[in-house]
Amino acid sequence: MRIVIVGGVAGGMSCAARARRLDESAEIIVLERGDHVSFANCGLPYLVGGEIADPSSLLVQTPASLKAALDLDVRTGHDVTALDAAARTITVTTAEGVDTLAYDALVLAPGAVASRPPIIGLDSPRVRTLRTVDDAVALRDRVDHGARRAVVLGAGFIGVEAAEALAQRGLHTTLVEFAPHVLPPVEDELAALVTAELRALGIDVRAGTAATAIESGTEHDTVVLDDGARLDADLVVLSVGVRPDTAVFEAAGVVCARGAMLVDDHGRTSLPDVYAVGDATASVDAVTGAVRPVALAGPANRAGRLVADAILRPDTARPIPQPIGTAIVRVGRQTVALTGANRAALAEAGIAVDTLHLHPGQHAGYFPGAAQIHLVVHVRRDDARIVGAQAVGPDGVDKRIDVLATAIRAGWRIDDLIDLDLAYAPPYGSAKDPVNLAGMVGENVRTGTLRLWYAQDLADVIEHALVLDVRTSAERATGHLPGILAIPHTELRARLGEVRQAAAGRPVRVMCQSGVRSAIAHRVLAQAGFDSASLSGGMLTLRAALGDRADATLVTGSVTV
Amino acid sequence: MRIVIVGGVAGGMSCAARARRLDESAEIIVLERGDHVSFANCGLPYLVGGEIADPSSLLVQTPASLKAALDLDVRTGHDVTALDAAARTITVTTAEGVDTLAYDALVLAPGAVASRPPIIGLDSPRVRTLRTVDDAVALRDRVDHGARRAVVLGAGFIGVEAAEALAQRGLHTTLVEFAPHVLPPVEDELAALVTAELRALGIDVRAGTAATAIESGTEHDTVVLDDGARLDADLVVLSVGVRPDTAVFEAAGVVCARGAMLVDDHGRTSLPDVYAVGDATASVDAVTGAVRPVALAGPANRAGRLVADAILRPDTARPIPQPIGTAIVRVGRQTVALTGANRAALAEAGIAVDTLHLHPGQHAGYFPGAAQIHLVVHVRRDDARIVGAQAVGPDGVDKRIDVLATAIRAGWRIDDLIDLDLAYAPPYGSAKDPVNLAGMVGENVRTGTLRLWYAQDLADVIEHALVLDVRTSAERATGHLPGILAIPHTELRARLGEVRQAAAGRPVRVMCQSGVRSAIAHRVLAQAGFDSASLSGGMLTLRAALGDRADATLVTGSVTV
Repeated sequence: MRIVIVGGVAGGMSCAARARRLDESAEIIVLERGDHVSFANCGLPYLVGGEIADPSSLLVQTPASLKAALDLDVRTGHDVTALDAAARTITVTTAEGVDTLAYDALVLAPGAVASRPPIIGLDSPRVRTLRTVDDAVALRDRVDHGARRAVVLGAGFIGVEAAEALAQRGLHTTLVEFAPHVLPPVEDELAALVTAELRALGIDVRAGTAATAIESGTEHDTVVLDDGARLDADLVVLSVGVRPDTAVFEAAGVVCARGAMLVDDHGRTSLPDVYAVGDATASVDAVTGAVRPVALAGPANRAGRLVADAILRPDTARPIPQPIGTAIVRVGRQTVALTGANRAALAEAGIAVDTLHLHPGQHAGYFPGAAQIHLVVHVRRDDARIVGAQAVGPDGVDKRIDVLATAIRAGWRIDDLIDLDLAYAPPYGSAKDPVNLAGMVGENVRTGTLRLWYAQDLADVIEHALVLDVRTSAERATGHLPGILAIPHTELRARLGEVRQAAAGRPVRVMCQSGVRSAIAHRVLAQAGFDSASLSGGMLTLRAALGDRADATLVTGSVTV
Repeated sequence: MRIVIVGGVAGGMSCAARARRLDESAEIIVLERGDHVSFANCGLPYLVGGEIADPSSLLVQTPASLKAALDLDVRTGHDVTALDAAARTITVTTAEGVDTLAYDALVLAPGAVASRPPIIGLDSPRVRTLRTVDDAVALRDRVDHGARRAVVLGAGFIGVEAAEALAQRGLHTTLVEFAPHVLPPVEDELAALVTAELRALGIDVRAGTAATAIESGTEHDTVVLDDGARLDADLVVLSVGVRPDTAVFEAAGVVCARGAMLVDDHGRTSLPDVYAVGDATASVDAVTGAVRPVALAGPANRAGRLVADAILRPDTARPIPQPIGTAIVRVGRQTVALTGANRAALAEAGIAVDTLHLHPGQHAGYFPGAAQIHLVVHVRRDDARIVGAQAVGPDGVDKRIDVLATAIRAGWRIDDLIDLDLAYAPPYGSAKDPVNLAGMVGENVRTGTLRLWYAQDLADVIEHALVLDVRTSAERATGHLPGILAIPHTELRARLGEVRQAAAGRPVRVMCQSGVRSAIAHRVLAQAGFDSASLSGGMLTLRAALGDRADATLVTGSVTV
């Protein structure tokens, strides 16, 4: 049996290795258009930034090592330019010419290519993407040879990593994002923390704007933005996203959706004995059911293995799971991670949710180095299932998101998190872990023990309700809403009469710094008969959600009650 | 309604706080025998070691703060000395005298007390447990005032933490453990790594021995061990375990098993309106079904909350989950964590398992700081469920054990781990996370794609099989088994004839450094018709399992093939 695999990086190479482990007798040919197979493209930004010094460390395997260990026939510089499914052949173009290759099973893992938006002058030699080892080395060389100013177009994961790498090397770096904030999949109340971290790294962050032209000069290029700004740049990194690299296969009859190959849950395309895997395929989102390409290394690697099973053990092969989109990026001292669906995807899918905001410590507060995790969890309203979670913080973020990704995969309700036995000792967590706490808050919301109001309700709340701020006076002095009644939560039981008088029949909307004390206050008020609710995530979330509007909205200085 | 809670630390205080949030009208009285409530006993060793400087940072709440925030009536120095369930009263003894207190609901959270083994001279004033802030401050004071030599009796979690703290302060510290190795719940092939780390910290580790007497001198004490050793000590820490502090309640009719109060899944004891929670209660282990006390802060805190629900919302209260025993401890630069059942508990419960050993990196190998996680996973043979996992390593251990604890709680089979979408970027993991890899290895074992042999089979293997070592010659030179055939895995396909000749009809038992290459070699051999198996965890696991016998068992220097 001859298995031909088109593309030798993540999904393709996983498939090839697994196929060999399952079948010593198969002929396994891997065709890679580029110069390298099995290279670690996720490491490229760190090569630019200098954290990884040696490009060869990213070249995990070579054709020779793969031949020796796994008897794979790996051919670089081999571009597949046509597919004839009826004849079971592909056309392969190399520097030597064009040839035809027959297959019994064909696995398409061509990956994605960088999107090229309609920007005038994008072909300037100072513009590069960051997709290959050559890209990374070229960028590093320019930095080594005196580049001082960089513009990064697109603040997705790679754009943010690239901007940090360049700033780390001392370049004046501007990060431009068309969406309203950096890392568009991240909720705005968390993205504000990322923007702040990027600015602390010295990066000039410009969101809500896009480049319209790149003017090439002799000394440098100038990037022109649609808000009129002109940014001089010695190098420009283009990272506005990717699109599946599928034109050849779509032309050959592989059914695609918006350019991504459609596959069943064993990786089978619409053509017989033609499979596909990785960034070039469309997946069904496990939470929303949306069909879209997922350009992530983890799902590609794991699916490659399962496609080999589907080819060689069709009767017992495990299906490829629907992705839930877990992703993570380091930004300065912060970690930003997400899993499941975000607010926009949930809204698009028509899924109503309650959203929880928590700011627990990553470990015991009394242990050195305690720091907050800013956690957002979306809970489907109709059945209390966890449908999404995101977090930002300097430590312990990856752990909590991985646990939540596991819970989403398990189809758990928010209450189920209460029962998790997570590893606790003071350097690692708390007796009630942040994930347990999310479960407890969620259960309280679900049972009506806790009622929340949100930062986005602010205008309405200010107009129609009494805002009760239960923080201390020192906390309030750092910024509070206008027109509040201020009573520390420890005095609330004795001063309910003041609340009744100030409310004058209006609802009472409580807030504190993080949402813990306001939840206690809410319980006091609700049991005393008030129409009460507690601000989800407190001032920490409110301030982040307000972003640049915070200064105009909040009053500083003491408040008289 | 009057709720009386006996014990004001983890479970008791969680119950009190939750009860107030549910019911503003209840009278909630917390009786604590000691001087402090809600203190962070898990932080005590760090106070001794100096990582935590201020004892007051461990006093999370005070009676006054709990009165102000939650209207709790907290009484320290109140010892409950009798219970009359028929009359619904308890007897409370204080410095002022004896009084009777009536209750509507009674929650018993007395915790546990340190076990005191029959050691002659244990009442020496130089002997202390490490259970209270006063204990920790007293130990620290002795160190501050010139103590130079310490003996820690018992190498459970607290004993190990105490030994490290004392060594950190510069004391010559001996750690004595009756069981064959430190941290008895940890498998021997991982505990060896902990012993090595403790020794690297300068701690004199003595396992398999116990103290028989403590001789008090004027200058110092001398601890006499049952192997005849005599250890001079300026201070002795007694940490040989705890026992539920339940004599008063057992006498009053609360049904106990080996001293631990039996409760149903809402925390109800055998007496009406009497609940119990925490270290003094018996739990049913979620994996093995064994009934035993679990002295861990997390389950106690979470159960306290659920008991309040059971009292105040009996119709909708969530049951208390069966614990799975997740635990963690930092030892020097290493983290040691475990969840589910260990080999001994599984054997006792008659549960047959396949055990997986992996040594993956905590993150991408090319990213700076890559380090191995030594991971052991037990998989129930009859249904492939994950029933236990343990790990040791300098980074990323807590995350993987928490994910595995979540998977155990979900009742997952080992294969289910393949599908986990965990957060991957080079600083945090790999495209195939260690947890994914465990799933892949486990599936291979379950389907017969991989067949394992274990370190404990060694004697039998050496006698009856050919050991094929597929490592490089440089690796072999650091230590190999006697009588091996050495063929690097990259040469195996071409040299199968040599294997056939050397095996001479015997089974072939393959090994490499970590188990990855030997699994590839096993596939080659199995498909060529050999009776083959791959050493689980490779030389890394074998060496750790051999422990002190490694030098006598392994041959160093080159091997001729």
